[in-house]
Amino acid sequence: MPVVSRVLRNGSCHQVEGYPDDLAEILADPAARLWVDLATIDIPTLEEMGRRFGFHPLAVEDCWHNIQRPKVDEYPGYLFFSFHAIDESKGGDILLREIDGFLGGNYMVTVHEEPSREIASLQERCTRNVSTMERGSDYLFYSLLDLLVDTHFPVLDSIQDRIEHAEHELFERPDRQTLESIFMIKKELLAMRRIVGPQRDIVNALGSRGYAVITEPTRLYLRDVQDHLIRLTELVETYRDLVNGAMDVYWTQSQQKLNEVMKVLTVIGTVNLPLTLIAGLWGMNFDRIPWAHDPLGFWYIFGLLLLVVVTMLALFRAARWL
Amino acid sequence: MPVVSRVLRNGSCHQVEGYPDDLAEILADPAARLWVDLATIDIPTLEEMGRRFGFHPLAVEDCWHNIQRPKVDEYPGYLFFSFHAIDESKGGDILLREIDGFLGGNYMVTVHEEPSREIASLQERCTRNVSTMERGSDYLFYSLLDLLVDTHFPVLDSIQDRIEHAEHELFERPDRQTLESIFMIKKELLAMRRIVGPQRDIVNALGSRGYAVITEPTRLYLRDVQDHLIRLTELVETYRDLVNGAMDVYWTQSQQKLNEVMKVLTVIGTVNLPLTLIAGLWGMNFDRIPWAHDPLGFWYIFGLLLLVVVTMLALFRAARWL
Amino acid sequence: MPVVSRVLRNGSCHQVEGYPDDLAEILADPAARLWVDLATIDIPTLEEMGRRFGFHPLAVEDCWHNIQRPKVDEYPGYLFFSFHAIDESKGGDILLREIDGFLGGNYMVTVHEEPSREIASLQERCTRNVSTMERGSDYLFYSLLDLLVDTHFPVLDSIQDRIEHAEHELFERPDRQTLESIFMIKKELLAMRRIVGPQRDIVNALGSRGYAVITEPTRLYLRDVQDHLIRLTELVETYRDLVNGAMDVYWTQSQQKLNEVMKVLTVIGTVNLPLTLIAGLWGMNFDRIPWAHDPLGFWYIFGLLLLVVVTMLALFRAARWL
Amino acid sequence: MPVVSRVLRNGSCHQVEGYPDDLAEILADPAARLWVDLATIDIPTLEEMGRRFGFHPLAVEDCWHNIQRPKVDEYPGYLFFSFHAIDESKGGDILLREIDGFLGGNYMVTVHEEPSREIASLQERCTRNVSTMERGSDYLFYSLLDLLVDTHFPVLDSIQDRIEHAEHELFERPDRQTLESIFMIKKELLAMRRIVGPQRDIVNALGSRGYAVITEPTRLYLRDVQDHLIRLTELVETYRDLVNGAMDVYWTQSQQKLNEVMKVLTVIGTVNLPLTLIAGLWGMNFDRIPWAHDPLGFWYIFGLLLLVVVTMLALFRAARWL
Amino acid sequence: MPVVSRVLRNGSCHQVEGYPDDLAEILADPAARLWVDLATIDIPTLEEMGRRFGFHPLAVEDCWHNIQRPKVDEYPGYLFFSFHAIDESKGGDILLREIDGFLGGNYMVTVHEEPSREIASLQERCTRNVSTMERGSDYLFYSLLDLLVDTHFPVLDSIQDRIEHAEHELFERPDRQTLESIFMIKKELLAMRRIVGPQRDIVNALGSRGYAVITEPTRLYLRDVQDHLIRLTELVETYRDLVNGAMDVYWTQSQQKLNEVMKVLTVIGTVNLPLTLIAGLWGMNFDRIPWAHDPLGFWYIFGLLLLVVVTMLALFRAARWL
Repeated sequence: MPVVSRVLRNGSCHQVEGYPDDLAEILADPAARLWVDLATIDIPTLEEMGRRFGFHPLAVEDCWHNIQRPKVDEYPGYLFFSFHAIDESKGGDILLREIDGFLGGNYMVTVHEEPSREIASLQERCTRNVSTMERGSDYLFYSLLDLLVDTHFPVLDSIQDRIEHAEHELFERPDRQTLESIFMIKKELLAMRRIVGPQRDIVNALGSRGYAVITEPTRLYLRDVQDHLIRLTELVETYRDLVNGAMDVYWTQSQQKLNEVMKVLTVIGTVNLPLTLIAGLWGMNFDRIPWAHDPLGFWYIFGLLLLVVVTMLALFRAARWL
Repeated sequence: MPVVSRVLRNGSCHQVEGYPDDLAEILADPAARLWVDLATIDIPTLEEMGRRFGFHPLAVEDCWHNIQRPKVDEYPGYLFFSFHAIDESKGGDILLREIDGFLGGNYMVTVHEEPSREIASLQERCTRNVSTMERGSDYLFYSLLDLLVDTHFPVLDSIQDRIEHAEHELFERPDRQTLESIFMIKKELLAMRRIVGPQRDIVNALGSRGYAVITEPTRLYLRDVQDHLIRLTELVETYRDLVNGAMDVYWTQSQQKLNEVMKVLTVIGTVNLPLTLIAGLWGMNFDRIPWAHDPLGFWYIFGLLLLVVVTMLALFRAARWL
Repeated sequence: MPVVSRVLRNGSCHQVEGYPDDLAEILADPAARLWVDLATIDIPTLEEMGRRFGFHPLAVEDCWHNIQRPKVDEYPGYLFFSFHAIDESKGGDILLREIDGFLGGNYMVTVHEEPSREIASLQERCTRNVSTMERGSDYLFYSLLDLLVDTHFPVLDSIQDRIEHAEHELFERPDRQTLESIFMIKKELLAMRRIVGPQRDIVNALGSRGYAVITEPTRLYLRDVQDHLIRLTELVETYRDLVNGAMDVYWTQSQQKLNEVMKVLTVIGTVNLPLTLIAGLWGMNFDRIPWAHDPLGFWYIFGLLLLVVVTMLALFRAARWL
Repeated sequence: MPVVSRVLRNGSCHQVEGYPDDLAEILADPAARLWVDLATIDIPTLEEMGRRFGFHPLAVEDCWHNIQRPKVDEYPGYLFFSFHAIDESKGGDILLREIDGFLGGNYMVTVHEEPSREIASLQERCTRNVSTMERGSDYLFYSLLDLLVDTHFPVLDSIQDRIEHAEHELFERPDRQTLESIFMIKKELLAMRRIVGPQRDIVNALGSRGYAVITEPTRLYLRDVQDHLIRLTELVETYRDLVNGAMDVYWTQSQQKLNEVMKVLTVIGTVNLPLTLIAGLWGMNFDRIPWAHDPLGFWYIFGLLLLVVVTMLALFRAARWL
Repeated sequence: MPVVSRVLRNGSCHQVEGYPDDLAEILADPAARLWVDLATIDIPTLEEMGRRFGFHPLAVEDCWHNIQRPKVDEYPGYLFFSFHAIDESKGGDILLREIDGFLGGNYMVTVHEEPSREIASLQERCTRNVSTMERGSDYLFYSLLDLLVDTHFPVLDSIQDRIEHAEHELFERPDRQTLESIFMIKKELLAMRRIVGPQRDIVNALGSRGYAVITEPTRLYLRDVQDHLIRLTELVETYRDLVNGAMDVYWTQSQQKLNEVMKVLTVIGTVNLPLTLIAGLWGMNFDRIPWAHDPLGFWYIFGLLLLVVVTMLALFRAARWL
């Protein structure tokens, strides 16, 4: 059965498969602490959970939908939340692992489809240190949120590495590969922004506005999570600026190369003109052509061509075309 | 007659053509539920409806105008609303089917010109499950809104397919067709944005601010519709970013191709120069031209040309021009 | 004399040249209605009007200034307003005809320089239907505003026609004329936006905030005007997007044409190279040139050239350059 | 001594060099009016002034700093203000002449480094019309502000002239001069925006929020200044749009010219190909060349070339390349 | 030991290594002043400091983290702050030196890793002038903030110099170096903006909102710091506009050069056509070529070529191509 409950009551903390037998008593005891984790989005299981806790059908329904957007909905006596851990696939796509749940006065319920490293890590922390549960269900919620937000940083670090790589390639030898990888990075940053922005707004609301189930001491800790989220937002914006800046550099370099190539073409075309013309003129079939019978005639023309080339290059240099 | 009334009173639910005979009594009975559907925008019919319910002339007038913009106006005791179902034409245009109406404390009136799949679907649901009407006219209104918003998703899915197709074409072989189709997608996304944005704001207002005819339980359901609308807004923005990103890729690829072509032109022009010049020189009419009388003279020049070509290509390769 | 007064008092409605003799009594009678229209911005006339009604000097001064920006200023007991009717000149410029005025509890004063079709139309409506004045000076004000806002739609329709024309031309044969006309449309849309935006904000304020001289029933009508103004704003934005989108299409098409032309140039240059080179080689003056004495030598070369052309075109086709 | 005081007390108005002897009595008399003007930013002089009036050291310090940004700081019992008159240098730079000062319940102090035309003009107005001072120190402050804002319009008019000139040049014969002048205009508009924007916000605050030293009647006049500032802001934005629009036109024209030039180049290259090829072929040294011994051979080739040119031009015309 | 305390109590001010012995008494005495500076981010040292003053663990933790973003967190009875001094590296990177700290009712604690010129300068000022401490811990905090903000101006001055240099280079001879340096400046301005923006918001909050530990007189001084920060923000924006404007100029110049080069190419190509054609024609091997036997034939052709060149240049000049 994919339901695991961890109960702290009367000073003793234990973990059980399924729901505790005295669920109603625990919920009624403000000093007790309960954390129920459901590693499934099986609809009947979730509906049973909803009935046991008395959650609103809409909120329970949200648990098995793929919401894709972090949110917190307040219901009388409890919050429904939906957050995401982030992974990066080999191919550079952002993968979202959704964790939904409920936060009440003395309990937390978490729901997730795949096994979650973050939930496992939090369970281990509770086992190691009972105070994590003692400080209240909202502190537990903060600890989970903190773990989820921490999954964002490695993804951003990887994006930064790839931006630096792409920047370097753009300057050295831009090709279709580079452009596709920049296009990918832009898509990922868009995805990150759509996740981080709402999270920041939600945590801001949790930390400042009057949600009844969040106590004052925990609010200070949420402010810390919010600092991380603000930094994440700024990093995403910075990386967007960097990518756009790199593209600008690519464009100006591209234009500069084009201009240089055109200059070379023009110089060649201009130098070409008198040379072939002279050769053509002396190739004409006239009885009398200057120097035609001079034994060195051919070399006179050769010298003339050299003179023309040198003169034109000197002129170009004077006009700062070279 | 295009007027259909569905009445729930004293536990019995029935549907009648035209208005119920005891309209005034029904409206005065808070426990009763009434839904009148007018499948017409015939002005006299609407004016009669307005008189029967006592609606403000401006609101009734809005029923036969084509408003094109979702809105909700509050009047004393009732709301006027105007929403849209969305279809996509074969040619890729957004088609709006407007549904206007009034929401009172225990009744809803809906007005639409063409036959509406959404209205039919809601009528069927009421027949199947009487609780849809029992829960109040505002829940009925929510159900209608939910059906209307659900029409947006297939359109966005189709747009997504077309973006992916266009993206692929842009990378492989961009032509005028691709550009026109991207232009079309941009226009559609503009149209979607102008519909989805105001809907989101309106549903936000309905779900949070104090509209008297919306009860607290229904407000939670409206929040659900609003989540859909927020996701729609974000999808539209994402697709806009994707289209713009695809255009950027097109541009950079285009520029890169241009630069490569220019390089080829320059290489050809540069190689061309000495070759034709040499041929021209030996075509000059002098008495004494080097090798002119040598039986292999022609082939010496041939060898000279080959040497020039090889040298120049080697130089280009050394300068990384090739 | 360019002053016309229309008085409704004790059930009788009449129009007089100049001011009514019992102006003070009319102003003191809440049941009376007065509309004074000044078809002049002659300073002494306006100053006299200001003295008669007791208006603030700053507001009276604004009547003869060309304000160019719609505005409403609240003074104790009355509002000063400044709105615009819009025309489009033959050359496609936006022409503003300013109508200023004052709105008091039971009177309205309007001031305009040129003869105004909208004022004439409102006067006619008052003559036809006395209820226009009976409903209060604020309803009269609403009627005027409605007429002024209605002048915007034909201008936008004309802009839309011209956008469609320009779009078509951009796709078919863009020339300097098209660019200038697009530049003109952009200027017009800028002008429209500067007029419509403030109007919408002002009417929004009039319809919602507590201006004492606007009664509740009229506020509903003002909401209707506001709907028109919101739609106007959105149309202007849509047209701006269309114009910018059309320009983008022009640019991409332009770039594509350039790339195609460059390709043709490169193909020509590349094919040209071996042909003229061969002709040049056989034009060289050597004693022994291959085939020189062969009677069909000329035609061998001809065949060689054909062979070269065919081979190169085949290569280009294989490399998908053609 | 650069201090000039103008005192209105007990019905008599007189101007003195330096401070009035009975400064303390004047400040204590709410019916008195005092305006002290310091045409210097000499630090000891300003510090003495600060001590006489009891101003905060930070505010006095701001008088000799070059603030560059309009501002109003409220202190208990008085305001510190810093505004700017604008001039345009011959070279087209925006010159700011700063006027700082203090506004108390019945006095105003102004501080400026260079002689100020606006201060002189206000002094003259006070001499001509004693009511300017009678209406209170805040009305005096409004009069000064009005004079300062009026200096902005000539500068904007000059910018408009230069935009129109640059627009015309861009269409006719764009050169480096034109681009530099557009660059200058953009810089100036940036400078204007940085001055006008904060002024508008400050005057908005003065006119609406509860500053104790600004009385209700003066607030109406400040609204008038604010209208000017709003119009200035809109003019600046309009001019920015115009400049950017002109640049767009330049770009599209530039691209169009480039495309036309490329077309000409391609046509020339294409026509060139067969002509020189034919000439080259008949220049080959074969024993038997067609028509070589025909007396009209030369003219046959001439005719052939003409035929080729005519055919190709006809083909180009058919393909709409010309 | 890297802890230095400066105590002002009962009129005497002295500096001690480590913490004062009577720390608890000092903190309890509202008339006393204490400033503890920790020139280390050694974790145990900071944890001990936190215990002595009773600071929240989260705030103490922030002292040894590298926060990178200015912030102020309010805790009951004290503020945690984190600000930055700015240096510019030789290579043109922005270097941040973080200074964290706590501000209580009568004490300030500062924490920094590297030796800080600003802290040293403030210590010296306290030694020189005891009133700096007498005026309260919040005035001390203001003095520190002022010193930190003053480090921004030299960096911006250096950026301005480099912009002017790059602008000049862009106009004169743009190369890859210039583009890289502009890219660097953009990155620096991005970094500056991310620092200055939040600082301005924070100082704005400190100066206006009700933070208990900031007294009214100090608030006036903070407004002064805020003026500096607003000016810094505007400078950063101005520099961004300048850089972007310079890039625009580069682009238009680049395009203009390209167009000119293309024109030259076209002129050369067009002039080239008849010249080489004529030379080719007279190089054909016919028995009868016009002027072939005329002794001046060669010079006739020469004259013909000159005539063609002159005619074409005249035509180009007439068509305003030159």
